[in-house]
Amino acid sequence: MILSLASIATLLAVIIPASHGGKVLVFPHDGSHWVNMKVLVEELHSRGHAVTVIRAADSWYISETSPHYNTVTVNIAGAENEDFYRLFVSEVIKIKRSQGSVWARFALDMELKDKFSELHKRVCEMVVNMLENKELMKSFQDGKYEAVLTDPADGGGVMLAHYLGLPLVFNARWTVHGEAHFAIAPSPLSYVPLPPSELADQMTFFERVKNIIFYIMRMHLYKQVAGPHYSALANHFIGPGVDYFSLFQAADLWLMRVDFVFEFPRPTMPNVVYMGGFQCKPAKPLPQHLEEFVQSSGEHGVIIMSLGTLIGELPHDLANEIAAAFAKLPQKVIWRYKGDRPATVGNNTLLVDWMPQNDLLGHPKIKLFVSHGGTNGIYEAIYHGVPIVGIPIVFDQADNLSRLRAKGVTKVMDISVLDRTALQTAIEEVLTEPSYRMNMQRLSRLHRDQPMKPLDTALFWIEFVMRHKGAAHLRTESYRLPWYSYHSVDVILFLLTVALLIFLFFVGLVWSCFRLCLKTKMKSD
Amino acid sequence: MILSLASIATLLAVIIPASHGGKVLVFPHDGSHWVNMKVLVEELHSRGHAVTVIRAADSWYISETSPHYNTVTVNIAGAENEDFYRLFVSEVIKIKRSQGSVWARFALDMELKDKFSELHKRVCEMVVNMLENKELMKSFQDGKYEAVLTDPADGGGVMLAHYLGLPLVFNARWTVHGEAHFAIAPSPLSYVPLPPSELADQMTFFERVKNIIFYIMRMHLYKQVAGPHYSALANHFIGPGVDYFSLFQAADLWLMRVDFVFEFPRPTMPNVVYMGGFQCKPAKPLPQHLEEFVQSSGEHGVIIMSLGTLIGELPHDLANEIAAAFAKLPQKVIWRYKGDRPATVGNNTLLVDWMPQNDLLGHPKIKLFVSHGGTNGIYEAIYHGVPIVGIPIVFDQADNLSRLRAKGVTKVMDISVLDRTALQTAIEEVLTEPSYRMNMQRLSRLHRDQPMKPLDTALFWIEFVMRHKGAAHLRTESYRLPWYSYHSVDVILFLLTVALLIFLFFVGLVWSCFRLCLKTKMKSD
Repeated sequence: MILSLASIATLLAVIIPASHGGKVLVFPHDGSHWVNMKVLVEELHSRGHAVTVIRAADSWYISETSPHYNTVTVNIAGAENEDFYRLFVSEVIKIKRSQGSVWARFALDMELKDKFSELHKRVCEMVVNMLENKELMKSFQDGKYEAVLTDPADGGGVMLAHYLGLPLVFNARWTVHGEAHFAIAPSPLSYVPLPPSELADQMTFFERVKNIIFYIMRMHLYKQVAGPHYSALANHFIGPGVDYFSLFQAADLWLMRVDFVFEFPRPTMPNVVYMGGFQCKPAKPLPQHLEEFVQSSGEHGVIIMSLGTLIGELPHDLANEIAAAFAKLPQKVIWRYKGDRPATVGNNTLLVDWMPQNDLLGHPKIKLFVSHGGTNGIYEAIYHGVPIVGIPIVFDQADNLSRLRAKGVTKVMDISVLDRTALQTAIEEVLTEPSYRMNMQRLSRLHRDQPMKPLDTALFWIEFVMRHKGAAHLRTESYRLPWYSYHSVDVILFLLTVALLIFLFFVGLVWSCFRLCLKTKMKSD
Repeated sequence: MILSLASIATLLAVIIPASHGGKVLVFPHDGSHWVNMKVLVEELHSRGHAVTVIRAADSWYISETSPHYNTVTVNIAGAENEDFYRLFVSEVIKIKRSQGSVWARFALDMELKDKFSELHKRVCEMVVNMLENKELMKSFQDGKYEAVLTDPADGGGVMLAHYLGLPLVFNARWTVHGEAHFAIAPSPLSYVPLPPSELADQMTFFERVKNIIFYIMRMHLYKQVAGPHYSALANHFIGPGVDYFSLFQAADLWLMRVDFVFEFPRPTMPNVVYMGGFQCKPAKPLPQHLEEFVQSSGEHGVIIMSLGTLIGELPHDLANEIAAAFAKLPQKVIWRYKGDRPATVGNNTLLVDWMPQNDLLGHPKIKLFVSHGGTNGIYEAIYHGVPIVGIPIVFDQADNLSRLRAKGVTKVMDISVLDRTALQTAIEEVLTEPSYRMNMQRLSRLHRDQPMKPLDTALFWIEFVMRHKGAAHLRTESYRLPWYSYHSVDVILFLLTVALLIFLFFVGLVWSCFRLCLKTKMKSD
């Protein structure tokens, strides 16, 4: 039996519903977050939707022109700034390497806090600039947009969606409150570790104490650096008395960059859709010179190392220790390193400015990934089943790697004491102890075994929200309750009072009876 | 371009992974629950899996031979008993119709409680009979089963899975604790209504009080009728000190017969998969005599009525009122009714012993469904977008219908005061007020707009558990924590104590300073 291509198109159309070509407004978070958002934007474009991306005049990562999206440039300097982060990271490394004082680290953390506060203030300026631009708002309103897609790491998209009355879709892992689930799903602190505590889902008593202290600090930080700025705007633009946090919790859909092969299992909500690893794809063939280098490794195979786009170079002493450790290995090494060539680099090591990381991780010769623990790299390593030696430096990296360590797929190094011997030992342990690779390949099998590809799932739900003008039936409005009602404190106090009154009534009754009996007895005596 | 059928097979194989032909052990809950379980069993069979179903010798619903599954018959009388339930339901109707006393209703509820207690005791007998049958257990162990699929409404499958060390999959809506989520997902009683409270997700203060009282009663009921029976078995067969509830919470997968177009949104867990409406399918053509009857309705269309398999007949007065209401309508009526023909039946009404309910609901001439509010019928009505007039009688029916009323797709009648006028008015309201049908069709669109068909989703996850020997990465082990640790009561008390000690220290310090100053002053005076 023979079928025409037209029949197959009909057949597939039943399985994969056609897009209707809608319009989406995207307010991204600049910097590395855009790398993820861009994947969604490009996929929306490839499915026939028109995407408009809002960017600051001097955006760090978001280019003004693209074949995949239009841009609206807001004439305000963006707060995200590559130089600051590079400097910050190199300061962190310096302090850690010199075993610097707690105070030096604290001062740096305060600087980071000020930076985040500055960031949110700048986003607020962008929002004011946009919402007060009548012409721009009219073009958005007339533009028949069907959803706002945004990153909840800042509040710009939230304000815009509510102002325009459009469904709100989050591409989320972090929010201004910390881990995104904490904003909407019940998160018992007894088994849900709060980053950056580096805790696991099974904690001792004092670890649970630590987790709650981190939570209190995080809430305090939110109030200091973000909440009030946005609430002031919400009051002005959305309505008097409107709290920013409730606008935030009213999002229709949370596309979470989470997969439970990586994160600890925890409570969730019906309007949370998991798309962890949505950027992963099969490896493409390597450029010829890399393929030749990789093949030259023979049976020993290849190690690749990258500390992410932000960390291109390292202090000389540290770079020398790492290079020396690599030089002693029988494997070949490809190291993405942009600093001066360390003196100890061995013949087996190829330094590169950039590498096709995903294609390398998918190459059968790659045995190990030396990584800082950024989420994108971790998902690529999981997807391809390559174990990791982790060198966490800042942000969520230590937490990410601690999760992988708990799954037995990663050896984590402490940068403050890292030397050639320690690194060599760690690498050899991960290479020779088969459990690391076997565990990672098990995670890879679990991660790939999903009913749909994560990117397709994400797109289905974005289009669902566009088709149905939101997803109200998947979203609780419990956030409207005051905290004492949400936690039933008022009801419990009421029931205890009633129980107490009943108890007192009976005590009174017994006492009256007792006195009556006594009286009667005294009379009769 | 032309492709051969072989190419299409290859193409589809990429989209739909082939089954590997495994073996599944099923311990169902007898009665109407089996109607759902059978859908999964037949689908497992059709995908090449061998299914073995465990049944009691005198099973109510589960036949001993089937082309779809093998059976293992345990030589114990099952506790589920059609006659009891029929009698029970007719007693409930009688009491409600005669506006019977609260005490009469209470006595009946106590009888039902005893019946449930009896049911769980019988299941325990089945379990003992099975687990002590060395030959049977050996055949299960040697049989290379890959999962136990069971209904958590009783504890038989839970015991069996843990005894055999097999992954445990629930086909769930109700458990011995009430609504299934309550066993594993945080369920704040401030916005998660507990059946049979008939409350919604937005409650007043006193509704929240009612909800908590229902919760306390439910927990008490569990301890009275189920928990201790099973825990005694767990102690004996699984290990000393093992609590049944923790075995229950350790299930790998919860396939929930839930869709949030019907249920209120609420917190959930990563190992919960929603398959509400998995039994729904497109309508098949009607038998000729029914099709002719339906077509004879002209522009007025047809109403169908069924109160479920359990309620085949009604007291004469009630049946007469219903028939008289129907007789006054311009629509045609198909009424599944097994009792004596009511005297007031009109010419427009066809009484039938059985009807192809799904095929009728999917017929364009059907305008309204008069239903008792059983879950299966409700999902079929949602699937086909037919609004409902509900006459709830027992069990979860009133709760089900109250959910639909909250969505504006149902008018609910109180059977104790139902007469011809009230029913006619309700039917006319739902037929003439367009919002009922429009809302139901909106629910239908939302329900059908899923990335995969619910039955395919359910099968994917059953097979996932079979492939990976469980789904540990999706399951928290938080249930191992004592309640005071789970709710962080110990940590909060610890932190308050520390805060108090610090406060007292400072008070002491200030007091000492004050005394020192006083002394110095007195000396200097």
